[in-house]
Amino acid sequence: MKQVYLDNHSATQIDERVYSEMVPYLREHYGNAQSMHSLGARSKDALETARKQVAELIGAKDGEIHFTSCGSEANNLAIKGVAEAYKQKGKHIVVSAIEHFSVLYSARRLEQACFETTYVPVDKYGMVSPDDVKKAIRIDTILVSVQHANPEIGTMQPIEKISKLVHEKEILFHTDAVCTAGIIPVDVNKLGADLLTLAGSQFHGPKGAAALYIKKGVKIVPQIDGGIQEGGRRAGTENIPCIVGFGKACEIAKNEMGGNYKKMVILRDRLISELPKKIEYVYLNGHPEMRLPNNVNFSVEFIEGESMLLFLDGEGVNVSSGSACTSKALKMSHVLSAIKIDPAVAQGSVLMTLSKYNTDEDVDYVLSGFPPIVKKLRNMSPLYAYFLKTGKRQAAGPGTDYKHEHEEHSEEVK
Amino acid sequence: MKQVYLDNHSATQIDERVYSEMVPYLREHYGNAQSMHSLGARSKDALETARKQVAELIGAKDGEIHFTSCGSEANNLAIKGVAEAYKQKGKHIVVSAIEHFSVLYSARRLEQACFETTYVPVDKYGMVSPDDVKKAIRIDTILVSVQHANPEIGTMQPIEKISKLVHEKEILFHTDAVCTAGIIPVDVNKLGADLLTLAGSQFHGPKGAAALYIKKGVKIVPQIDGGIQEGGRRAGTENIPCIVGFGKACEIAKNEMGGNYKKMVILRDRLISELPKKIEYVYLNGHPEMRLPNNVNFSVEFIEGESMLLFLDGEGVNVSSGSACTSKALKMSHVLSAIKIDPAVAQGSVLMTLSKYNTDEDVDYVLSGFPPIVKKLRNMSPLYAYFLKTGKRQAAGPGTDYKHEHEEHSEEVK
Repeated sequence: MKQVYLDNHSATQIDERVYSEMVPYLREHYGNAQSMHSLGARSKDALETARKQVAELIGAKDGEIHFTSCGSEANNLAIKGVAEAYKQKGKHIVVSAIEHFSVLYSARRLEQACFETTYVPVDKYGMVSPDDVKKAIRIDTILVSVQHANPEIGTMQPIEKISKLVHEKEILFHTDAVCTAGIIPVDVNKLGADLLTLAGSQFHGPKGAAALYIKKGVKIVPQIDGGIQEGGRRAGTENIPCIVGFGKACEIAKNEMGGNYKKMVILRDRLISELPKKIEYVYLNGHPEMRLPNNVNFSVEFIEGESMLLFLDGEGVNVSSGSACTSKALKMSHVLSAIKIDPAVAQGSVLMTLSKYNTDEDVDYVLSGFPPIVKKLRNMSPLYAYFLKTGKRQAAGPGTDYKHEHEEHSEEVK
Repeated sequence: MKQVYLDNHSATQIDERVYSEMVPYLREHYGNAQSMHSLGARSKDALETARKQVAELIGAKDGEIHFTSCGSEANNLAIKGVAEAYKQKGKHIVVSAIEHFSVLYSARRLEQACFETTYVPVDKYGMVSPDDVKKAIRIDTILVSVQHANPEIGTMQPIEKISKLVHEKEILFHTDAVCTAGIIPVDVNKLGADLLTLAGSQFHGPKGAAALYIKKGVKIVPQIDGGIQEGGRRAGTENIPCIVGFGKACEIAKNEMGGNYKKMVILRDRLISELPKKIEYVYLNGHPEMRLPNNVNFSVEFIEGESMLLFLDGEGVNVSSGSACTSKALKMSHVLSAIKIDPAVAQGSVLMTLSKYNTDEDVDYVLSGFPPIVKKLRNMSPLYAYFLKTGKRQAAGPGTDYKHEHEEHSEEVK
């Protein structure tokens, strides 16, 4: 059976060149980068080479790159670390309503320590309005965090405009670029980021290595205390093999981004334009144009995302029913909720994220295999039966009146 | 040139069986363990298998194992996480003076949030007295943390006695077992640990995976907020390849610990007994009997540890001049300071940590190669020249009177 992997926001296949680069550090060059002997020096060199590769991908200086174990850790460091460092200045932060949980729950944690958070809403496309950010800013605001793009619905944010107005107020700006770095051009100077999160596992690097860019001069309180690693900002033995892989993935991404981008956009646009021709009552979530090149998110009415996921898996196609971090939680995606998708429609959402390894044949396979699955599931759906019989839509919950407002909030592709 | 690696506290060579187990998860089984499709399920299975392997090594239940990226992260989670969870009960914690920096600096961080710490002293062998722990406990004490053994001087602590008296006061007990788990038997029930830290990179697992055992019922506040991974106690995409390797390393350690232990003790004891026969004015640091099977720490008078390290490195022998986390810091080791080694002697300390891969030939090589290095360095040492000329010892610093109290505080091996 053909295998088609379309869950590249959750995890990506390692690039064989990345893997090859890691192997010697997994096996023979196992020294601790803090050790003063030659085996340690070899690891230290590898660490600094990787730091340079990461810095070059995002237009930073080497010393501004701080390695962490994952994007979530980097986001925690950014939000909590800055909050603690600047709490004398103020105890208010601003984040968008559709940030990754590692940002949202860091903010919530700070609220327990008497910080306040303003959650900026988004429009029906998941877009943050710079004006709303401006309105949210207070005299005691110390940090604004808005993600570069949303991994679930693919919407790109107007980061340059947001960072500009944030800086006018002399406030620090963080952007979570986990789903953009390595996929589209990310330049900390152009974006105006004081802090930026990226993770190699999103672009064919290994799991276990990510980074927080911290602009020179920005203060931060470490979240993992201990040794002097990462300039005293992140203690713990450096995971050299994974960091080496992360660095190599950055180097490859920098060199090959242009071609990969074009290729993914073509595949994405085929899925976005052709699936609705084959499946009725399907709606694209997220912005139709300001969109990640590898993101396709559809709500398929009358059925559940989880069922589609499992049936697609049975055909060798791996997709997600939402953010990887929530896929096993039962609650509705906070992102779909923020763009006000009706819960009865939102539950039928399927997230397909492409990578450079996907092909035209993969898309052909999905386009031919997906519609029969939807047909089969709808044939089993009481909601669909009711709709066919009455022409009316019904909520999933018993006794609830269903008000079909979906078209107002999401883009139905013609 | 022969290579002899004796810096196994800083990092260990991966076991080839561990590496082989990791490779498929680095390459083809790259799914996110939170993804619901079959590739995700495969990662999830691997995660839970590893959790079981780790649990079995330390006599825990699977659900009590929480993966982190390194021992430092686990120690931070233990200290800060418990402190935050139980702060209503009290804001006082007790740690030993020779804990790892990730424990000490976590305590110090908490002090900024109005917690108080009592640092329990150690005797000349680096041993914590249960009576001193008892004296340190207050009505508002919520946590006591004493390491199972000290990685720098090898001294094993009387953990069972300490945990018993801690529990009598209904206080939680954490032990940092980073340098014992996988090396000597570690059983959370026997030790009486409510929380215990271990790291696979200490026993031929990969860097990038460690764990915090949290006894069922113990509350903890996550330090990395975000997704629902690790029972909501540690967010972030699980580093499956490294966790798989960690699990395998635990399985191997459990099966082969006995033989490795005996082998390392023989090599350790050869170094401890024979080096002083070949080098004058050399003192063993740490406890002569209650000692890690792989730890040798000597202070070699009149010369600097760093010089010895570099000359030994030139002969292919990798050692450490102290804890990996401080080796590049210029200050004297806090451990040698706590056992009151005279700074002028402490600066000549060399830490040799063995592994199961070391051989008799390695020890032969060190025993023949080390004494000439000491001789060469002493011939360049003004301190040694002064001693030869006057029979008196002199401090390193100019104009400082040197009071030679070393024999009181450290064990000179006859």
